[in-house]
Amino acid sequence: MARPLKVAVLGATGAVGTTLVQVLEEHDFPVESLRLLASARSEGAEIDFRGDGLTVQAVKDGAFDGCDLAFLAAPEGVAREWAPRARAAGCAVVDVSPAFRLDLDVPLVVPEVNPQDVDLWKARGIVASPGPSAVLLAVALKPLHDAAGLEHVAATVLASVSGAGQAAIEQLEREGQDLMNGREPEPGPALPWRIAFNLVPQAGPFGPDGRAGEEAAVSAEARRLLKDPDLRLSATVVRVPLFYGHSAAATVRTRRPLGPDAAREALRAAPGVKVVDDPAQKVYPMPMLAVNDDAVLVGRIRADASQENGLALFAVLDNLRKGAASNAVQIARLLAERHL
Amino acid sequence: MARPLKVAVLGATGAVGTTLVQVLEEHDFPVESLRLLASARSEGAEIDFRGDGLTVQAVKDGAFDGCDLAFLAAPEGVAREWAPRARAAGCAVVDVSPAFRLDLDVPLVVPEVNPQDVDLWKARGIVASPGPSAVLLAVALKPLHDAAGLEHVAATVLASVSGAGQAAIEQLEREGQDLMNGREPEPGPALPWRIAFNLVPQAGPFGPDGRAGEEAAVSAEARRLLKDPDLRLSATVVRVPLFYGHSAAATVRTRRPLGPDAAREALRAAPGVKVVDDPAQKVYPMPMLAVNDDAVLVGRIRADASQENGLALFAVLDNLRKGAASNAVQIARLLAERHL
Repeated sequence: MARPLKVAVLGATGAVGTTLVQVLEEHDFPVESLRLLASARSEGAEIDFRGDGLTVQAVKDGAFDGCDLAFLAAPEGVAREWAPRARAAGCAVVDVSPAFRLDLDVPLVVPEVNPQDVDLWKARGIVASPGPSAVLLAVALKPLHDAAGLEHVAATVLASVSGAGQAAIEQLEREGQDLMNGREPEPGPALPWRIAFNLVPQAGPFGPDGRAGEEAAVSAEARRLLKDPDLRLSATVVRVPLFYGHSAAATVRTRRPLGPDAAREALRAAPGVKVVDDPAQKVYPMPMLAVNDDAVLVGRIRADASQENGLALFAVLDNLRKGAASNAVQIARLLAERHL
Repeated sequence: MARPLKVAVLGATGAVGTTLVQVLEEHDFPVESLRLLASARSEGAEIDFRGDGLTVQAVKDGAFDGCDLAFLAAPEGVAREWAPRARAAGCAVVDVSPAFRLDLDVPLVVPEVNPQDVDLWKARGIVASPGPSAVLLAVALKPLHDAAGLEHVAATVLASVSGAGQAAIEQLEREGQDLMNGREPEPGPALPWRIAFNLVPQAGPFGPDGRAGEEAAVSAEARRLLKDPDLRLSATVVRVPLFYGHSAAATVRTRRPLGPDAAREALRAAPGVKVVDDPAQKVYPMPMLAVNDDAVLVGRIRADASQENGLALFAVLDNLRKGAASNAVQIARLLAERHL
């Protein structure tokens, strides 16, 4: 059992930050004290933790003094600025932003996939939590990779708006209300186009190879997590008009024959996975089932007859919880038990 | 120029049927007279055509007498019953239902893909219009197949609720209103689960191989349309909370090298395709752009580095128009010009 820790959360008022505070409570994380930090704009906001209303403080010099552990649930640039300062103040840092996910001196960890990598935290004092789409694919694919080797993966990720933050949640709400009442919504500001009753095949800025930022990121992060730098994985990310839950439809070619029954068994035995797979009874993963769950739901497991050793599946996770906050708290628990 | 025809539409009050009547008018189809037919439940409804309110009649014995051309925009069982009777009454039949799509005596036609197959109509007197997902894939993939040969296709189809008919449109409307007002919606009846702010990875009943009905259908129909019975194509169909527009995210492996620039050129030169592809300027296909268009919009064309000769793309069509009504009217025009 880890000793109680002095914990700080930067970005406490955002979509991930508020979920993080909830998860710390629900998971009975050993918190001795909790300091909630955000930009000056959110100073003075109150957030509930274990029945107390905690007041959000503006992050500034000395904000992390005396803490053991800092969660960074802030935008990338903010995380990049404050991670070294939190570390210098003596905190172990768990970063939920994209800032360090591809930094080879910073371990990128999903506790069900590569828990041992937490032990590499000392180099920078930081452990990074992957993006939700990478968590989703890594948790769902790891058991198949272990069982039969992954030769090729083609995935379409259907990303809910909360993956783009609180402002995108509010955009979908407002647009939905407008359209339901016959008004044409004002464009933006959080997503590039109207998202209500629409799909937007853009998540992040486009690179010279035509991939959007999150498409490049999910492949790179999945390769790190699965420790297969040559893994052939193609991903398209489409923003869909849901508030919560990221889904992936994936076709997989394995190196050795596996088949849907053995795949289902491998997934059933895997940590962090719930096999939800009885289609004839209308039992399959859906975002409405994944919300508030810390597992990755996997179903629609079937042979893909279009390729040798082909499998297809559909997987869903709560992007704010297992895709961000819960994964970060699980990382912190490993850190606490082993190193703090 | 074809002579004006006596036209009947069965299923005139449904989502596809009402669109069909609109498209006949918009496309200046040579209509001498228009008879609107539906089940007895819809008898007496009025539908506008060229400024006149036409009264819907119940379909019954003799309903097709004296017609030259009958569109069947009815459920599969109804189409199966009335197609031979319309034919016996002397009509050429264009069936928009799934009833005859895999009947090898009935040509399955997308005029931009295989117009010549209309000439095979005589065997049964019927031409079938494919399902919207197959139209989408066939129109988007044909130019690539012609240019470089398709070795493998993995597609995720994101199907709007109108693909499941008028009742599914009303279900999404009601559920959206309920959830926006904080009420938990009643389940169903048109779709297996709540669709508002959710995704449902089921389109049709599941077969013994784990594929849903529409997943098996889209592969079989695309193979017929592309005249490649061995085409290796894997499809997952996910129902998404949109009213209109079916989308597909596809990765393609071609037999010969092609590359995104040549693919874009081939698509630009193809009939029925609009290349909408300047991602840096936020220009890519989306359902909100495809609605009321008769083209298939294709964009996000890029190399798929995960496989040799790999390409990825995103394509969208209006499922009620090019996916059903407009395609049927285009088929009818070919029939009229060549055979009626």
